[in-house]
Amino acid sequence: MSGEQGSERRVTAGVVVIGDEILSGRTRDTNSGTIASFLTAIGIDLTEIRVVPDDQPMIVEAINTLRSRYTYVFTTGGIGPTHDDITADAVGAAFGVPVDLDPRAVEILKGHYQRPEDLTEARLRMARIPAGADLIPNALTKAPGFRLGNVFVMAGVPKVMEVMLQAIGPLLETGEKVLSNTVDCPFGEGLIGTALGAVAAAHADVMIGSYPVMNGTSFSTKLVVRSRDPEALARATAAVEAMLARIAAEQAAGSRPVKY
Amino acid sequence: MSGEQGSERRVTAGVVVIGDEILSGRTRDTNSGTIASFLTAIGIDLTEIRVVPDDQPMIVEAINTLRSRYTYVFTTGGIGPTHDDITADAVGAAFGVPVDLDPRAVEILKGHYQRPEDLTEARLRMARIPAGADLIPNALTKAPGFRLGNVFVMAGVPKVMEVMLQAIGPLLETGEKVLSNTVDCPFGEGLIGTALGAVAAAHADVMIGSYPVMNGTSFSTKLVVRSRDPEALARATAAVEAMLARIAAEQAAGSRPVKY
Repeated sequence: MSGEQGSERRVTAGVVVIGDEILSGRTRDTNSGTIASFLTAIGIDLTEIRVVPDDQPMIVEAINTLRSRYTYVFTTGGIGPTHDDITADAVGAAFGVPVDLDPRAVEILKGHYQRPEDLTEARLRMARIPAGADLIPNALTKAPGFRLGNVFVMAGVPKVMEVMLQAIGPLLETGEKVLSNTVDCPFGEGLIGTALGAVAAAHADVMIGSYPVMNGTSFSTKLVVRSRDPEALARATAAVEAMLARIAAEQAAGSRPVKY
Repeated sequence: MSGEQGSERRVTAGVVVIGDEILSGRTRDTNSGTIASFLTAIGIDLTEIRVVPDDQPMIVEAINTLRSRYTYVFTTGGIGPTHDDITADAVGAAFGVPVDLDPRAVEILKGHYQRPEDLTEARLRMARIPAGADLIPNALTKAPGFRLGNVFVMAGVPKVMEVMLQAIGPLLETGEKVLSNTVDCPFGEGLIGTALGAVAAAHADVMIGSYPVMNGTSFSTKLVVRSRDPEALARATAAVEAMLARIAAEQAAGSRPVKY
């Protein structure tokens, strides 16, 4: 298995978070973190996130840049019924296709808002879909998202975004999952950095991340070894653990406190 | 005062969040939200956020694009002592300047790590600063950030980032603060969207945002009116409130439940 990994296609993704309210700090974006975890779990490498305002040229630029660069693009926000929901029009502009009422989406909304007076003009805006798109079902509140080309357009409300993401999952080409080991290190990065760098250089077939954990004004560290190759992962993890044991022994022998 | 607003310079900003751990979903970014709130409070318009991996070309691209586009750029992450901390080198590359041990930064670290053996090779990496940069003080853990041109480079650990942001604040050109009123709307966006769009069109001198609040599977809405002009803000807020009163009266007269 691991011998064939070099020939496997890497599946990549970008995320575009759309909304003035994120950029003003009024709303904290949680969707991009949810998407990041979701993609990592199915072996897709999220490579870039952009947060842009409710501004068509900026949305178009972000979508067009990322869709040419990555296997998939996921957007959140701006597909509701109000005047500031402009994502469908922006996606249409990005692809150069018209955006009109989509009969499939209208049917979904009619099924949900059964009395004609409840299917307001505003709600009908949620059935405006770029030509050529597939709908993404919304198990929770019905108004659909859509997919056009490699771009998946989802709602901004986190719970609605999550059910759309679940619906999209089976449609995605997945990559080989990145495996990871986390090694808890009692020392701060400053004490282990040089030795860790040597381990990283000697194990260039894995990724080694070092993440400080703050305890008051001192630090410990989480060391995360990542690879798609389980054998390389095991080798590098063992090397990190051996390095930490050596540093711990040196510290004990020196009996000196160290500022981390 | 308000009559002069048209001639005031708009102060804008972009944020670059640097770190594989954000893109893998392992760590949730809170720094960009903190920066967003901080900038909004001092009248600076945050216009774009990008999250990029620990990859020099991608960091350079993001910094160079945003620094040419906005008044200020703020980065977080990648200035620690380990091999995966590459932000200083990336900023040097973005500006085309060398990156070397900075005597001022070395002095700060020497003052903190007083015994020579504690100022490890790894910790000294935190004194590598691009030529021409000013240091950003770090009241908490001492290792400084830096400013080069209009780019402010801060730590990724949130508490450290926050003290750096506080230190930067007084250096920034601030804009006129955006004022906002929030109107709680008991109806979902679908019921008010068309009327709200008309209010927004009639008050193009303000920004009106509509944010759904999910209650189970139904919605209420927060309507946020924003402007730098207090009179325009008051006019538009009154118009939103009048619109909601009208819809509430219509709903009461019709005595019909409405799916939001």
